[in-house]
Amino acid sequence: MKLEMGKQTVTVPEEAETEEVMVTAAEPRAPSYSSSCKVDGEAAAAAAAEVAMAREGGEELVVPPLNFAMVDHGVFRSGFPDTANFSFLETLELRSILCLCPEPYPEANTEFLRSHGIMLFQFGIDGRKEPFVNIPEDTIREALKVVLDIRNHPLLIHCKRGKHRTGCVVGCLRKLQRWCLSSIFDEYQRFAAAKTRVSDQRFMELFDISSLKHLSPSFSCSKSS
Amino acid sequence: MKLEMGKQTVTVPEEAETEEVMVTAAEPRAPSYSSSCKVDGEAAAAAAAEVAMAREGGEELVVPPLNFAMVDHGVFRSGFPDTANFSFLETLELRSILCLCPEPYPEANTEFLRSHGIMLFQFGIDGRKEPFVNIPEDTIREALKVVLDIRNHPLLIHCKRGKHRTGCVVGCLRKLQRWCLSSIFDEYQRFAAAKTRVSDQRFMELFDISSLKHLSPSFSCSKSS
Repeated sequence: MKLEMGKQTVTVPEEAETEEVMVTAAEPRAPSYSSSCKVDGEAAAAAAAEVAMAREGGEELVVPPLNFAMVDHGVFRSGFPDTANFSFLETLELRSILCLCPEPYPEANTEFLRSHGIMLFQFGIDGRKEPFVNIPEDTIREALKVVLDIRNHPLLIHCKRGKHRTGCVVGCLRKLQRWCLSSIFDEYQRFAAAKTRVSDQRFMELFDISSLKHLSPSFSCSKSS
Repeated sequence: MKLEMGKQTVTVPEEAETEEVMVTAAEPRAPSYSSSCKVDGEAAAAAAAEVAMAREGGEELVVPPLNFAMVDHGVFRSGFPDTANFSFLETLELRSILCLCPEPYPEANTEFLRSHGIMLFQFGIDGRKEPFVNIPEDTIREALKVVLDIRNHPLLIHCKRGKHRTGCVVGCLRKLQRWCLSSIFDEYQRFAAAKTRVSDQRFMELFDISSLKHLSPSFSCSKSS
């Protein structure tokens, strides 16, 4: 099932309505190797095979996606997850994924989401290099609304490398959390490193959060309870 | 009250026993500017004055400590917090702080902890530069036990810059979470950046987690519930 909502594409697993997905996602899942073997589909089998190689001392290891980090309670960030990361993603018990790339979502990832009842929110933003970059403010704003909605948590935000598009969304989120700009830039640069873009930082500085403030009270970040 | 436990120094606020501290720490605190003004002591007043300057559009901003990040549920990391960061730290509703520096804890920070019922665990590790560094495995192990004990959460791990000593503790924690080494080093390098030390990474690689595995089941990391 695909729902077109303006620039936003919401893909709900075909066998389940949204309500049912929520219930499925809320159930605890064993993050063990044996449970990942039960996942249907070739892609999942390939992922399990890759994970099987990543062992140490007879114990399986997990492989977080590139640039993975916890942003705050119920919110994670990373680069594009591939099949090697599926076993790790299972441990997060995700309810939704927010993808900021415009390209069609890969078949293996779609299958992983389907089999785990994870919703996909896709807000395609062009990832081209400076000076051709023009970050669409409206798209970031719509993406933020998804992030702020705790019904979508736990949620993973990702783009290609987890640096620029993801960094901008997280930076705007930090503005809503009243972080000072120097701390927002410090965090952005930690992920962007040598690829830091002045245009991204200017975008975050000028981004107007006033239209989103009414959503903050339902937001769990910076609260441990 | 100071309890000497081997190499570990636990400082419990003087007016409260541990049991009482836990209750205090579990109570919700309003992270507003007005509440930070009620804190006793010159240091807290200085902090409030600094925060008062960090305003934008009539709203106060918060200043996370250098290299601040959420490690996992109930666990944060950063560089040494100073008075400018106290208003932000209040929003985390910390139950304890794990300091990895050997120097006496600053008076202003001690006062902040006392007034907020936050316990201090201090595991002093010398922060000198390579090749004089010798990371004490036993100290890291004892520090990890504190991190793994969810009764101490929410907990902030910090050293001076949040790069090396903190990076080693978090890296060993990731081993317990079965992260593959390349992902552990990737995270370590994100914080250490140009100051990345091969000796730290070798330490994390060789660190034996077998004696800590029995503590893992009570550990909340990599679980959203």
